Amino acid sequence: MKEAYLDNSATTAVCPEAARRATDTMLRCYGNPSSLHGMGVAAQREMEKARGEVAGLIGAKPNTLIFTSGGTEANNLAIFGAAQARRRAGKRIVTTAVEHPSVSSACDELERQGYEVIRLTPDRTGLIGAEQVEQACTSTTILCSVMMVNNETGALFPIREMIAAVRRNAPGALFHCDAVQAAGKLPIHAGRLDVDMMTLSGHKLHGPKGVGALYIKKGVRLLPRAYGGGQERGLRPGTEAVPLITAFGAAAAALPSPAEQTRHYDALRSRLLEGLQGRGDVVFHLPAASVPYILNLSVPGIRSETMLHFLAERGVYVSSGSACSKGKKSPVLTAWQLPPGEIDSALRISFSRYNTEEDVDRLIAGLIAGSESLIRA
Amino acid sequence: MKEAYLDNSATTAVCPEAARRATDTMLRCYGNPSSLHGMGVAAQREMEKARGEVAGLIGAKPNTLIFTSGGTEANNLAIFGAAQARRRAGKRIVTTAVEHPSVSSACDELERQGYEVIRLTPDRTGLIGAEQVEQACTSTTILCSVMMVNNETGALFPIREMIAAVRRNAPGALFHCDAVQAAGKLPIHAGRLDVDMMTLSGHKLHGPKGVGALYIKKGVRLLPRAYGGGQERGLRPGTEAVPLITAFGAAAAALPSPAEQTRHYDALRSRLLEGLQGRGDVVFHLPAASVPYILNLSVPGIRSETMLHFLAERGVYVSSGSACSKGKKSPVLTAWQLPPGEIDSALRISFSRYNTEEDVDRLIAGLIAGSESLIRA
Repeated sequence: MKEAYLDNSATTAVCPEAARRATDTMLRCYGNPSSLHGMGVAAQREMEKARGEVAGLIGAKPNTLIFTSGGTEANNLAIFGAAQARRRAGKRIVTTAVEHPSVSSACDELERQGYEVIRLTPDRTGLIGAEQVEQACTSTTILCSVMMVNNETGALFPIREMIAAVRRNAPGALFHCDAVQAAGKLPIHAGRLDVDMMTLSGHKLHGPKGVGALYIKKGVRLLPRAYGGGQERGLRPGTEAVPLITAFGAAAAALPSPAEQTRHYDALRSRLLEGLQGRGDVVFHLPAASVPYILNLSVPGIRSETMLHFLAERGVYVSSGSACSKGKKSPVLTAWQLPPGEIDSALRISFSRYNTEEDVDRLIAGLIAGSESLIRA
Repeated sequence: MKEAYLDNSATTAVCPEAARRATDTMLRCYGNPSSLHGMGVAAQREMEKARGEVAGLIGAKPNTLIFTSGGTEANNLAIFGAAQARRRAGKRIVTTAVEHPSVSSACDELERQGYEVIRLTPDRTGLIGAEQVEQACTSTTILCSVMMVNNETGALFPIREMIAAVRRNAPGALFHCDAVQAAGKLPIHAGRLDVDMMTLSGHKLHGPKGVGALYIKKGVRLLPRAYGGGQERGLRPGTEAVPLITAFGAAAAALPSPAEQTRHYDALRSRLLEGLQGRGDVVFHLPAASVPYILNLSVPGIRSETMLHFLAERGVYVSSGSACSKGKKSPVLTAWQLPPGEIDSALRISFSRYNTEEDVDRLIAGLIAGSESLIRA
């Protein structure tokens, strides 16, 4: 059976370039980058090459990036590291109600520690406006964290305008952006955005699982979350995951341009929308501004998991909300105030550069078959 | 030039079995273990197989192990997680002055937070006795953390007796053991030791860098250090590094038995000791109890780094202290109160199962040549 993997916001297939680089690193460049001898120096060199490749995704200099074990660790480091470094300047943190758990749960923990956390909710169009950020940011605000692209709805948030709003109202605050669902697919320039911190993840862009990066603007000071051997400027101690880091670099270098990818995603998305056009049994959840590679829809009356398994039996893989929530009711769609029946039946379709029109056709056929044969709850 | 890699306590060559498993996982099993569909289930299954393989190193059940990004993260989670979970029971922590930085720096941070940290120092034989632990443990002691094998001297600490001492004097305390330099090479049974937490690292036993594990005895409660999607029982959120985890499992499964390895290391060590016997220019630092795969020696008058680079030019790789300290004066040898001239010239030789007698001969020749040709400081 041919398979259609349409769950690329959960994770992506590792590209051959990344797998090859990881294997090469494991077998031929296994030194510890902290070792003083040539084996260590060689590993360090490969790692720094990869740092440049990954930094290139966001137009940044290599030395602005530190590698982590993934998006979760990078988000945690940004949130806790900034909040703790700035705790004398204030206790107010502004974020949204639709962040990834690695941002929202970190903020919950800070709230338990006595910080004040403001969680902005999307309007009826699925968006959060810069003016909401502006209103929420006061002079005691120390941190604002907003994702660039929502992982469940594909909503594209106006980060540039939000950063400008923060600079006006809370000049002492740091702005962190979780760009895990954006980097590699959208043109991003961290310097021109003037963002203070930005999170990237390897396995969302055809690198392996277990590696991420945090961009930290020059001059921004964070407190570490982990203590040990002083690697990654003391912010992320522990022997670096060299094979994953080099593979992350290879995956970044192998990506087609954002423009080329966008053309591809636009075509797939149009095909999906047209293929289901006029079907009253399918409801699309389309934010007013969104990326073309994440699409949320419902077949009301058929629970997400039921449809997900029906599709999976046909080799079509999608998800119900984020993988990290493992089937729990989506806080993102709840915050968007979608009708409960649509939340319970929501499916997320997410494309990668490896998807084809055939994959979309297989999904359309599966959704129609499911809608017609599954018993509505 | 044939090379002799004798820096296996810093990191080891990835074995072919591990590299192959990582590559297979990347290319053929790239699902997110949290995904509900078959691709996720397949990734989960591979990960659980590896958990069993790694748990086997310490005779433990798979469900007692959580995977981390390495030894540093596992040590941090054990120390902070235990200290914070038990903070109402007391503030006293007992550890040693010769722990890895990921334990000692974590304890330093707890001290800044108001905990009381006792750091036991080795006696003239390089050992720390169970009676030292017993004396230091009071009823308000909440945590005792002692490594099994010292990473610089190879000293083997009496963990079993230390645990018994803690149970007598501080029945409410947890015992954590950093077994990074021991696991896979020594016979260990976590259950029979009755240890509460134990740290393992993949890249010290021919797995890849970027993965470790923390054994947590059933019933022991820790607070998490990271917040996110709830993976690894909520103690280590973030998409699991599946390719590294499966490779860690493959490396664990591929290891010869500890008995077989010990015979091999004993032979290499004897050859080294005999080859340098009677040379007044070489001083061995031999703890009263030690493992045969780590050996510390000095060529007084020749600084560690000078000799290290001299050997490296001849393809012989050793280290000056731990890789993580990157050339700083060894706190381990300082705590052992070795003469300053011997500390400044200390070299660590560490074997793996891939080392041969030829490697040892090359090291002996290099050390003799270095001692005779390098200018003493």
